[in-house]
Formats: sequence, structure tokens, C-alpha cells
Amino acid sequence: MYFASDNTGPIPQAVLDALVQANTGHAPAYGADPLTTEVTQSLRDLFEAPDAAVFLVPTGTAANSLALATLCPPYATTFCSPVAHIHLDECNAPEFFSGGAKLTLVPGNDRMTPDALRATIANEGTRGVHGPMRGPVSITQVTEAGNVYSLDALNALCSVAQEFGVPVHLDGARFANACVALGCTPAEMSWKVGIDVAVFGGTKNGLMGVEAVIFFDPDLARTFELRRKRGAHLFSKHRYLAAQMAGYLRNDLWRDLATTANARCAELVDSLSGIAGIENEPTANMVFASLPRTTHQRLMAAGAQYHLWSGNLDGTNPDDLLTARFVCDWSLQSEDIARFHALLRN
Amino acid sequence: MYFASDNTGPIPQAVLDALVQANTGHAPAYGADPLTTEVTQSLRDLFEAPDAAVFLVPTGTAANSLALATLCPPYATTFCSPVAHIHLDECNAPEFFSGGAKLTLVPGNDRMTPDALRATIANEGTRGVHGPMRGPVSITQVTEAGNVYSLDALNALCSVAQEFGVPVHLDGARFANACVALGCTPAEMSWKVGIDVAVFGGTKNGLMGVEAVIFFDPDLARTFELRRKRGAHLFSKHRYLAAQMAGYLRNDLWRDLATTANARCAELVDSLSGIAGIENEPTANMVFASLPRTTHQRLMAAGAQYHLWSGNLDGTNPDDLLTARFVCDWSLQSEDIARFHALLRN
Amino acid sequence: MYFASDNTGPIPQAVLDALVQANTGHAPAYGADPLTTEVTQSLRDLFEAPDAAVFLVPTGTAANSLALATLCPPYATTFCSPVAHIHLDECNAPEFFSGGAKLTLVPGNDRMTPDALRATIANEGTRGVHGPMRGPVSITQVTEAGNVYSLDALNALCSVAQEFGVPVHLDGARFANACVALGCTPAEMSWKVGIDVAVFGGTKNGLMGVEAVIFFDPDLARTFELRRKRGAHLFSKHRYLAAQMAGYLRNDLWRDLATTANARCAELVDSLSGIAGIENEPTANMVFASLPRTTHQRLMAAGAQYHLWSGNLDGTNPDDLLTARFVCDWSLQSEDIARFHALLRN
Amino acid sequence: MYFASDNTGPIPQAVLDALVQANTGHAPAYGADPLTTEVTQSLRDLFEAPDAAVFLVPTGTAANSLALATLCPPYATTFCSPVAHIHLDECNAPEFFSGGAKLTLVPGNDRMTPDALRATIANEGTRGVHGPMRGPVSITQVTEAGNVYSLDALNALCSVAQEFGVPVHLDGARFANACVALGCTPAEMSWKVGIDVAVFGGTKNGLMGVEAVIFFDPDLARTFELRRKRGAHLFSKHRYLAAQMAGYLRNDLWRDLATTANARCAELVDSLSGIAGIENEPTANMVFASLPRTTHQRLMAAGAQYHLWSGNLDGTNPDDLLTARFVCDWSLQSEDIARFHALLRN
Repeated sequence: MYFASDNTGPIPQAVLDALVQANTGHAPAYGADPLTTEVTQSLRDLFEAPDAAVFLVPTGTAANSLALATLCPPYATTFCSPVAHIHLDECNAPEFFSGGAKLTLVPGNDRMTPDALRATIANEGTRGVHGPMRGPVSITQVTEAGNVYSLDALNALCSVAQEFGVPVHLDGARFANACVALGCTPAEMSWKVGIDVAVFGGTKNGLMGVEAVIFFDPDLARTFELRRKRGAHLFSKHRYLAAQMAGYLRNDLWRDLATTANARCAELVDSLSGIAGIENEPTANMVFASLPRTTHQRLMAAGAQYHLWSGNLDGTNPDDLLTARFVCDWSLQSEDIARFHALLRN
Repeated sequence: MYFASDNTGPIPQAVLDALVQANTGHAPAYGADPLTTEVTQSLRDLFEAPDAAVFLVPTGTAANSLALATLCPPYATTFCSPVAHIHLDECNAPEFFSGGAKLTLVPGNDRMTPDALRATIANEGTRGVHGPMRGPVSITQVTEAGNVYSLDALNALCSVAQEFGVPVHLDGARFANACVALGCTPAEMSWKVGIDVAVFGGTKNGLMGVEAVIFFDPDLARTFELRRKRGAHLFSKHRYLAAQMAGYLRNDLWRDLATTANARCAELVDSLSGIAGIENEPTANMVFASLPRTTHQRLMAAGAQYHLWSGNLDGTNPDDLLTARFVCDWSLQSEDIARFHALLRN
Repeated sequence: MYFASDNTGPIPQAVLDALVQANTGHAPAYGADPLTTEVTQSLRDLFEAPDAAVFLVPTGTAANSLALATLCPPYATTFCSPVAHIHLDECNAPEFFSGGAKLTLVPGNDRMTPDALRATIANEGTRGVHGPMRGPVSITQVTEAGNVYSLDALNALCSVAQEFGVPVHLDGARFANACVALGCTPAEMSWKVGIDVAVFGGTKNGLMGVEAVIFFDPDLARTFELRRKRGAHLFSKHRYLAAQMAGYLRNDLWRDLATTANARCAELVDSLSGIAGIENEPTANMVFASLPRTTHQRLMAAGAQYHLWSGNLDGTNPDDLLTARFVCDWSLQSEDIARFHALLRN
Repeated sequence: MYFASDNTGPIPQAVLDALVQANTGHAPAYGADPLTTEVTQSLRDLFEAPDAAVFLVPTGTAANSLALATLCPPYATTFCSPVAHIHLDECNAPEFFSGGAKLTLVPGNDRMTPDALRATIANEGTRGVHGPMRGPVSITQVTEAGNVYSLDALNALCSVAQEFGVPVHLDGARFANACVALGCTPAEMSWKVGIDVAVFGGTKNGLMGVEAVIFFDPDLARTFELRRKRGAHLFSKHRYLAAQMAGYLRNDLWRDLATTANARCAELVDSLSGIAGIENEPTANMVFASLPRTTHQRLMAAGAQYHLWSGNLDGTNPDDLLTARFVCDWSLQSEDIARFHALLRN
């Protein structure tokens, strides 16, 4: 009953196998190895983007911060949701990598709306050299609150960005879960709706630590390479990043893993329904649900692991409704959900 | 005959086994897992430093840059050799992580001398707010030119640093190779000679990508943690860094791997002797040797892989002596050296 | 009828005289001149702070950004109003000087409330290394919206900062106008209510370009000095900054100038009352007032100069109420206000 | 007998007059005033560069650092002399403003040679993403050691830069003194020899604190403006920078001041000749000369003010030759030199 996060589970055997397979003899360092070349091509194929510039980095924060630094000069600002990971959970990494650019929060909660985005961008560009310049829009898919933008919604946000001539970054730490939820292809969820740079996350969906950053406009590639190196994110033994990604792409493993995770979440939602208040649209692998404090106490005492998102376990009123976040990773079994189900109804 | 670098070889089976072993069930993220706790303690034991603050990061550049940023404020300078990796090969990463601190090169070549270091530090501190403040000394062991500082030499440099009240950082990308060459313990090669922060490298000695940064003064730990996070080097699935390091430490694997690499290098030196001009004191795993252009052409044509360090293969004079760098990693076999030996004497 | 800003007027004769007086012979550079020493002491006396560290810089943005960089490490955040100058009007200067620290906006409008500040700080410190660390609170007095915090209000905000152990910065670009409005001393409006670092602005109150930064805890002085130098804000011919400040302090000129500016504003408020909607509490030298579009068109056509704060002059509806900002500087005459009064009522 | 620096003297009456003249009524802020427009045009005329982008900043460090930041991305390096002011005397300001770019020192002493520059640039660009990218060349004229590059020498250095496609920055803190020494026009000493961005210094030649930065390629102007603002170097009361520069340009005052300073230096050189060892080619306003320790002691005791550049006054051997730097500013009189002459020969 481990619902604390999707960065806490094991890696699939197929990924381990890919590591073992890559582990023979010597290979050129820093991404000049054949496996990296192969994986780069596989990602271009997957995204139907033959000219894309593709990079592997070890963490989601690196992927986001390096991509944004490439798009956002230090005297500009990135537009994002007030609950975006880049704002709340990266200890100023975007500000660091960009050399001091700002994040401008689009009013609202979780999913940005085109109107709020338009008003925010419009307002930011009116102070000449006194305010920051308009920089990229950053969209998170799946959002931090477990919601999934529809393709139309993504397209509408990208259209707003285009009105102002600013590029769009997609934080796709849970790219696969969103693709599965929408039943679409990676291309449909990225450049076809207007995304300029997408992060295709692997770490939360089964890898030890690999994210692909995909620039659909390869002209941006050269400064990314230099920023990756000076950010200390260029692996010398790059084949081990490539091997993980190779295992992830082979036979659409990435999609299978996300399908499983989303399915577990759907079971969990079923289990919570009627008992808990569901607070998001849980079509991917996360559900936010409110339950009375006593219920949380009982669940956790019995070994369920998850994070409270509001309130705390030790309050005085047993009936207070506390919101919790439940995340399902690929390694959960239906039995785990069933045990939780039984416990919840006990 | 792969002597191009020690970041191009495979990882030992014992490290793969440790990964497999760690790959069960869920584990808390960001270093809160039991394996990270265990490895932290193992490193404290290995370094005989019960209070040390220990951090794992994925690359040597991250280890060096983050450690130096902790020691060197942006208005200061780090003292290092003109051929230091931090100066030549990290695309300004130390300047980036420190927020714009400088590197001051100690005149000389490769190994710094106490006199040159003293004169350089003394000179740097004489301009009030106009020049940079004196920051840390950074020593590389094994050096970029394949030499090994004796313990006395390290101690002499650290004593100079102490004269000026500045801390000392050890770039130990090849820490293990140096330890084996000197026949000393990690403690003897670090805090016992006066090192304040040591990088205990794993990547060049058999790991996929893990370096330990060890602060003997734990007071520095908190800002390192924050810098690691905002530098995007805090792994969520941290157990896979820890697992590699666990495999590396178990049964002194780290020492065995370096012993093997150094032994191969010694065989290579024997092989080169009398034919090539040996340009360093090759007691660790690197030898720099000069050979006529034609010999290089013949060796490379036959499949020997290594880097020329001066000149280039296509010059007109066949007799020009060109210096090459030969690096031995743990995975080379005596047969590799024997083949090279035969080829060289052919 | 020039109400556009208080950075557009001339400098008083007494300040020019002080420049002329200082302009004899040679004087040591970089602040080692006797006049700088004298002015430093005068500021300590004025603030009743014999140990204070005092620095002169040429712009308000420099004063704020350098002070905040001293208080806020790059992995932390500064708490401020959503309309703070440091957030809206400095083109990311605080982010630049701090090396990428964040600004966290305290919900509300203009003046921060203790409750909102407390909730914001409390919330920011709950994510371990993932979120930014808590940094300083920055208070603007007079606020950007022309309001003045009472001494009790300042004290309440500083008390909240003390609850969390974070320091307080005062953006005092209009320090003098606030002091006059409150009828208090500089000490009462700074360290006596809990301010740690105050900017004592001169530029908006009659100087060509000088602000004093006053650290009541001199331990912070050394890094400020270095930051000022590397920020290129240490003047070689420092006596000309000192001379301006000397003229400003002599015979309480600073207070006289602000008294005059505030008095003009009070006359302007009288003039606007009954006709315009007054939107702030205009006890200092700024009034925000709403008037119909046609009135603005008429006023501006007749030569009144001021900025619209909302809406724009060319809209279709003549009756729309548009907010304007009127700022009075020391050089305005009662005749200017009288002309405006007549025009308004024409 | 004040030869300590050219940043310690008074400002000419004509500059004060220009300040007084500018000090009437209100004027738009941030450089939108008519005087700034006029001065911008005057500088374009003076440099025979009708399209040039022109900016005023208050310090030489600001001028250099902002100009270099515009030319040098954070993953690149600037090539300069080992004794360049940007390297030795700006407390890492170039590294700060560029976001962590490096300075690469061209071996030699003081004036760079084309061969040394070519070899240094060639060597820097050979490490792919591992080393920094090639950035601008920075030339100082008059050099820190008081020498003046000939126009041919400048042209030769710029030609080397062009070979590699990198731009050239001229640190012209003593631009006027060099122009006078060479008997050339500003255009001849800048874009006509291949300079891309020139700093036309005013502070060391009589202003309180104004330097003009002149981009002969105006495409670079926009990012400079933004960098100036976020570096806190955009003056609100910009007319007072413009007024100083207006006074400086009117009737070629800049040239007259430098002519006077250089003439005083020539008299000083005459005075030193035969007694002291002259160590530079003192055609501008600085002479480096060696004298016995006892002579220095005697001169300083009698009130001569200048800096020792090597050794120190309190050594044991009275006959040691110590090098001193003597700088002449525009305000020195022939009588000052005559007094020094008499003293020296006493």
C-alpha cells in the first residue's frame, strides 16, 4: 500500500536487462557511443520529429531547468501555474540555471486557463526595461494536482503563447501517464499542439534516473549542450543513461508501465469513491482525496503510505477532513489496492 | 587496447549485483532510504571520520563544483593548477555553481609546489575589495598529468592553505588509484594531511556515475544539500546511487579495481620503456609517453585507442615526437597490454 | 504641473553648493576620503546607531538589490508585497544580485498584513530542501501605492519576521516622506521597530543619485562591500556621492524637502477631493485618484503631466473612471497646485 | 604632488557649469530627457558612427562588465592581458555580470601580442563542450602599465579576433589620454581598427562618474539596456550623467583635459630621467619608475603621493630599487612637477 510517490518504486526487469546488455567492453564517453545515437533516433521516431535535438539528463529538475534556461534569458520571466513543480519544488533551480530569471505565476489553481495566461503575459510586457521581458510558458502535464490537460486545452495555451511570440515548455515528468490517459501519441501531445520543448520523463515511470529533453527546433541545441555540461549534467558513461531509455522505449515499455500505473489509480479511485471526497479528475496515476482525520490515522497505522496535502495527522478534531495525495506507480499490484480497499471499509 | 580514458569501460558485476539487490519494493526518495544511510556510515568508517557529512552526486563535475561553491563565495577565488580539470574541462561549471567566483592558476605545471602556492595566495589578497577574496585551494589527486602527490607533498600544500586560513578541496576523481599508488588509507590521504572536503570518485573506477563528497567539517553540510538540490543533482531514486557505492565499498572492491588498473598501467609502462619517452611519474593508472608520429600512426591503425596530448597525427614530419595519454581502467586485461607490447615492438 | 514622478525634478541649490565645496584638490578614492568618513558619522548620528555600517550607492535598485543579496542566499526567498518595486520594477535585479534567490509575494494589495505575512512565511518553510529557504522580509515605506505604514504596523511585521528568525529590509526610496508623514525620527522608523537594514533614499527627494544603505548589525558589512564592488557600484570619486549626502543631511535639508513635497501633495489632495475618487491614504507625497477619461484628456492636453495607473487615455467611453498616480517632489510650488486646481475645476 | 591616481582629482569648472545648466525644471527620467538625446548624438558624431548605440553608466567597472556580458555568454571566455583591470581590479565583476563566464589570460605582460593572442584563442577552442567557448577579446588602452598600443598594434589584435569570429571590446578608461598620445581621432582608435564596443571613459579624465559605452553594431543594444537596468546602473535622473558628458564633449574639453594630463606626465618623465629607471613607454599620463627605497622614503615624507607597484617602503635594504606608479590627472600644475623635480634632486 505504497502511494507516497511514483519515485519510490523499483525499476522493471527489462530496464535492468538493458543495462546488463549495454555493459560490455569500452564505449566512447559523453554521448558519443552507439547506443546514445540509437536512442536519439528512437526518440525522434517516437515523436515523429526527424530533426529534433534530443538530450538525456538524470533528473527532472535538470531537464526543466536546463530547458527553461535555454528559452529564458536572465532578464525575462517564465509563466507557470502557482503550483508548478518548477516553482514549488526545485529550490530555485530555474532561477539558478537561467542566471536569475523570474517565474511569473498565472493566477488560478493548478491548470492554467488561456484567459488567465493571456492576461498575465499581456500585463508583464508593459514596463519597458523596468519589468522582466516575456519569456516562455511552462505547462505541466500531468499537473501537480493530478489533472490532465486535454489536447484542446494544451493547444489553446500554446496559441496564447504564439500570440505573444514566446515559446512553450512542457514539464512531462509524467508524460507517459498523460499520454495514456488521453489515448494520444507523443507527437499529438507535444509539437502538434504547439509545444516547443518537451520533457519526456522516465524516472517517475520506472527508470533509475533519466529524462529526455526534446527540442523540436534543433537550433536551440547548441546552447543546451553547453548548459548541460556546465550544469554538470553531461554523463561521461552516457551509455548507462541511454541503456535505460533504450529499455524504456523498446516494445513500448513506457506506455505499458503508465497504463499499469493509471489502471491501479483507477482502481484506487473506485475504492475511495463514496467514502472520500475526490478533489481532482484522476485520469492519470494520482488521486487527491479528503477523508476524516481518524480515517487517515487508521489507514496509516495499518501501513498505508501516502502524503497529507493539507492539515496534519495530529489535530484535535477527529472529524476534520484532510486531503491526501495518492500516487500509483507501475509496480503496484491490484492486490495492493484490494488490501487498501478492505482496510478503508473495515 | 582501449587506453582512451577510464570513463569508457564497463561496470563490474558486483556493482550490477548491488543494483539488482537494491531493486526490490518501494523505498523513500531523496536519500531517506536505508541503503543511503548504510552507505553514508560505511564511508564515514572508511574515512575514519564519524562526524563527516557525506553526499552522493552523479558526476565528478557536480562533486567538484558543488563542493567548491560551498567553500568559495562569489567574490572570492579558488587556487588550482593550470591544468586542473575544474579549469580546463568543466565548461565554467565552478564559475556557474559559485555564482561567478574566479579560478586563480598557480604558476607551474601540473603538481603545485608549496612555494608557488604561497606566493600566489599571498599576492591575491592585497587589493582590498578590488581583487577577489582568497578562497579554497583545490588539489587534484591523481593529477591530470598522471602524477601522484606524496602524502608529504599534500601536507605541505595544506599547510600553506592553513597559513592563510583557507580550506582545501581534493578533486579525487581518481582517489582510489592514488590511494593504491601510495599504499595509504583514505584518511591518510585526506583529513590527516589537512584536506577539508574530499571527492571520493567512483565513476572512473568502475561505477556508472557516482561520486561521494565528504565534508570532514559537517557544519558545511546544510548549504551543500541546498546547492545540490537547486543544482538538480539530488536524485529522487537515490537508492540507485547508494547501491552503486555500496557495491563499490563492499569487500574493498574500490581498492581492488584501482589495484588492477594501476597494475595494467605498470605493465604498459614496462612495455613503453626504452621505446617511448615517459613524461610523468606513472605510479597510478595513467602514463604520458612520446613516440614518433609514424609509430602513433601504426599503433592507431592497428586498433590501439588513446588520445594525443600534443601535436596531431597528420603532420608532415614522420619523426616528430608526439605525446600521448594512455589511461588504464579496471577492465583491461594483461592480454591487452601484451598485444600492445607486441604491436609496439613489431 | 509635473506630477509624473519624484525622480524628474532638479536638485536643490544646497546640494549643488555641497558639490562645489567638495570639488577642491585631490582626495583618496573609493570612499577613503574625509567627507565620506564625515557623512558616515552623520548618518550614524541621525539614526542613533553608533555601530551601524553605512554605504552609499547611486541608485535605489542598487541599494535594494545589494542589501537583499547580503541577507538572502541564492537558495532562499525574500517576502514582499505583490506591488513591491523590487518585484515589478527592477528587471530581476534582486534575482541577479542574489544569484537566483526568489521573491515570494505576500497575498494582498500594497501594504502587507502581519497575518498574511505569517501565513506566507510559515508555508514557505515546509518543503525541506525542495522549496527555497526562508529569507528576509522586505517592506516598502512609503509603499508603491502611496501609503504609509504606521510605526505599529511596521513593528507588527518585524515581529512576524522575528518569529521565524529572518531579517527585515526596508526599501526607503521615500524614507524621508514617510518620516515626515509619521512625524517620527529615522531611528523610530527603522531599528526601533525592528528593521535590520534600511535604505535611506536621497534620489527621489532631491539628490542626483545617492542612497544610503544602513546595516544596524555591522557584521554584515564586509560582504556588502565586496558585493558593491563586484556589482560595479563602488564609486572611485566617492566624495561626490558623499558631498550630495552631506548637503542632504546638513540643517535637516532631507526633512525640509520631504515636508515641502508632502505639503504640495496635501494641497493636491484638497484640490482633487470632491471631484476625484481618492484611492490611497495620501499622507506622504503621492496620491492615486480616479477621474473620468474626458477629464484626464483635458488635464493632459492642458499640460498636466502624470501617469495613468489603470486604463488608457484613448478608450471609447468618455465616462470611464481611470486611476492616475500624482507624485509631488520638493520643487513643486503652491502655484503649480493652484494652476492644476483651476484647471480641474474649469 | 598628487600622483596616486587619476580618480582622485576635482572636476573642471565647465563640467560643474554643465550640471548647473541642466538643473532646471523637470525632465523625463531614465534617459528619456532631451539632454541625453543630444549627448547620444554628440557621441555618434564624435565617433563618426551614425548608427551606434550609446549608453552612459556611472563607473568603469559597470561599463566593462556590462559590455562584456553582452558579448560573452556564460559558457564562454574573454581573452585579456594578465594585468587587465577586468581581471585584477573588479572583484569578479565580469564573472558576475556574465553569469559565470571565464577570463582567459593571454601569456605575456601588459600589451598582448597578436601571436600570443592567436595561440591562446586557438588553444581555447579545442575541447568541444568541455572547455569554454571562445568569447570576446578585451583590449585596454591606455594599458594598466601605462603603455599605448599603436593603431597598427590595435588593428593586428582585432584582425586576430576576426580570424576566429569573436568580437573586440576596448576598455577605454583612459581613452582620451591614448587618443592624445597617438594624435588620432576616436573613430581611428575604435571601429576603424576593428573595435566592436568601446568604453569612452570620463571618470579618470575629469568627470564625477560617467563612462560611455558605444556599440558600433546597434543590434547589441537591446540586451545591454536590459542588463544595465537589472545591474542597477540605469539612473533615474539620467540628465545628470548626460550633463557631465555634455560638458566633457563641448569644445573638445575631453581632449584638452587629456592633453594637459599627458603634458604633466611628460614633464614628470623628464624629471625622473637619469635618476629613475623608466619601466614603461610613458606617452600618456602614467609613468612607472624605479628608485631606491631611501629615495621613496624621502619623497613620501615630503608629501609626494603615489603607489609603490613592487616591494614595500619598510624593507631593510636602503638601496633596493622599488617600482612606483605615477599618474597625472588634468588638475596637476607644472608647479607640482617642478616641486617634485626639486625634491627629487635635493
